[in-house]
Amino acid sequence: MSQLFQLEKTCPRTGARAGTLFTPHGPVPTPAFLPVGSQATVKTLTPDDLESLGVRMILANSYHLYLRPGVDTVRMSGGLHRFMAWNGPVLTDSGGFQVFSLGHLRRLSDDGALFRSHIDGSEHFLTPELAIEIQEGLGADIVMPLDECPAYGGDLGTIRRATERSHLWAERCLRRHGRSDQALFGIVHGGTFAELRRESARRLTSLDFPGYAIGGLSLGEPKELTHAMLDETIPLLPRERPRYLMGVGSPEDLVECVAHGVDMFDSALPTRLGRNGAFFTRERRLSIGNACFKAEMGPIDPQCDCYTCRTFSAAYLHHLFKCRELLGYRLATIHNLRFVTGLMEQTRRAIIDGTFAAFKDAFLQRYQPTDADVRAEQKQKWIESGPGRQPLD
Amino acid sequence: MSQLFQLEKTCPRTGARAGTLFTPHGPVPTPAFLPVGSQATVKTLTPDDLESLGVRMILANSYHLYLRPGVDTVRMSGGLHRFMAWNGPVLTDSGGFQVFSLGHLRRLSDDGALFRSHIDGSEHFLTPELAIEIQEGLGADIVMPLDECPAYGGDLGTIRRATERSHLWAERCLRRHGRSDQALFGIVHGGTFAELRRESARRLTSLDFPGYAIGGLSLGEPKELTHAMLDETIPLLPRERPRYLMGVGSPEDLVECVAHGVDMFDSALPTRLGRNGAFFTRERRLSIGNACFKAEMGPIDPQCDCYTCRTFSAAYLHHLFKCRELLGYRLATIHNLRFVTGLMEQTRRAIIDGTFAAFKDAFLQRYQPTDADVRAEQKQKWIESGPGRQPLD
Repeated sequence: MSQLFQLEKTCPRTGARAGTLFTPHGPVPTPAFLPVGSQATVKTLTPDDLESLGVRMILANSYHLYLRPGVDTVRMSGGLHRFMAWNGPVLTDSGGFQVFSLGHLRRLSDDGALFRSHIDGSEHFLTPELAIEIQEGLGADIVMPLDECPAYGGDLGTIRRATERSHLWAERCLRRHGRSDQALFGIVHGGTFAELRRESARRLTSLDFPGYAIGGLSLGEPKELTHAMLDETIPLLPRERPRYLMGVGSPEDLVECVAHGVDMFDSALPTRLGRNGAFFTRERRLSIGNACFKAEMGPIDPQCDCYTCRTFSAAYLHHLFKCRELLGYRLATIHNLRFVTGLMEQTRRAIIDGTFAAFKDAFLQRYQPTDADVRAEQKQKWIESGPGRQPLD
Repeated sequence: MSQLFQLEKTCPRTGARAGTLFTPHGPVPTPAFLPVGSQATVKTLTPDDLESLGVRMILANSYHLYLRPGVDTVRMSGGLHRFMAWNGPVLTDSGGFQVFSLGHLRRLSDDGALFRSHIDGSEHFLTPELAIEIQEGLGADIVMPLDECPAYGGDLGTIRRATERSHLWAERCLRRHGRSDQALFGIVHGGTFAELRRESARRLTSLDFPGYAIGGLSLGEPKELTHAMLDETIPLLPRERPRYLMGVGSPEDLVECVAHGVDMFDSALPTRLGRNGAFFTRERRLSIGNACFKAEMGPIDPQCDCYTCRTFSAAYLHHLFKCRELLGYRLATIHNLRFVTGLMEQTRRAIIDGTFAAFKDAFLQRYQPTDADVRAEQKQKWIESGPGRQPLD
């Protein structure tokens, strides 16, 4: 693969960067947010919709696609891009995170992870080599090594052992990976332990990956700790390689983490929140089910340029959600994805114009994040609804 | 209202007609199929989608919109068209059918129908006058009088009394209706009794409605009886007025009933079947969940010009339905609506070209209708799932 990333501008007052990822399916301006299309579909949207929202790259889940429809079906279809008719770049995760969070993990060793499918209970043994085979079969532009994803709150010894195993697995993935049209990233781990983060960053950069993900964050730890870990990790990563923070997608986190030097993000948050009736605006997250929208004849966000806001009143959206109409989920998804995609476009422009620090301050001053307790409660509710949840999962 | 309907061509060998409905929101070429948007949304689709499918007119349900969001919200929004951002013509039913099928009917008299909402149990008294008030508030282009909708199988006396009540109500609706930009149709009833049908047609035509609906059919009676009732009714309706058969939407029924002289149809069948994974083709209805589609790399219907068939393989659609992904419901809706809309375009062209009889014979010879028992079972399953069913109802 020729040069993957070109750094174009760095903010003189923060760590923010503007660049471009070059992939076999076209360039992606950064900072970039990747919507999640777990099962080869960004829920409710067609590829045409994604394009018209300004989405440049998406993420798909190896775990889900390996179990259903299976790698062979995707490969026979000509790969993930053709299967889902999305001609832009795709990144696949390794499946590790889902094995730990959705699959029923049966046995974990240095060899790999034995788990039961959440769909039919069938048993599978995911090794670093199989994770690469799966992803080579799916054919994404950027692929990830298998990693161990311990929950937040483990002690130093636990996290150290998991991190070391992820390093071993990263090496095995690197040895196995053969597709020259795919970029295999390294994933820095280390939980919330500064010394482990630094060690992980050093170890992985010595392996010379074309890009680096930062994993094991955004798992319920306080935000200060997330930022502290970025500060430990990012200065040790090569300047000219892209940096990808996994699982971050709230507006305030995106802006804050761009300032810490992150180039890429993925998260199901904007789309999942949308399906649950939460709409992002520049000031805060609004809940469309709120009675105040019952007779609101203006759009939910008068400052928004998305199809939903240009076309429908908040009263109509309120009605659709009250009736649990499928169109409501789609219109909310459109709005929220346009919001975060537009936010990334604005950060990029501000970085290039040299005004990012002011942009960031203004945004974070204006935006009222959802209360941490409310967020934790929502996340818990979602986790408890289980992997079979539909259609709002 | 100026002239509503212009008859353009009549098939010399069947009763089929081609014409145009002229409404305040534009012309509608007939024969026309109206997709159902019960709650001011054709499930999963935007108005843009509908337009690109060639849909020219839709139906919305007074019962649903009266209960939620309420007529005031729609009126304050500037009417149904602006509320749902659909600038084409709209027809609303009177709410009668839903009161009898969804609402918990408490008391029925010549005055009207007392029912409990299926949403919150609140009590409402629907009179002919209220049905008109509701529909004037919603602002559709074509509106319907309140009618009594007895189930199929009632005896002559029962159906006679219901039909006579519907006539009284039709007269009251006519007296109450005041919006000159709306056309109020009459609805011919009489169940499956030829003499009642003829009587109803004579009685209603004497009231000089600008168009005539044929109600109380497609309620589970044998198809021969449906056709026989059309033969009793249609010759008594004025040639220069549009004829609208309520609740018919299967491909074979559409073609057959066009041949009997029907100009307009509505039915939730194509959209509801789509959400349940049944795809129309020129030969038959296919079930996308069938294992034969798991590795089918071609489109579900190679002869179809819709977005779904032009863009996605049957294997991908199979995958979406197996995963209960919302995009699957939308892609199936697009396909089935394009199928019936295209079918109406073809019948119209054939009528104008003078080749309709041959078109009809060829279509009905080729198309294998779904087995009557299977259809009855599917309908029963749907009815039993109750009015609160979501999201596939």
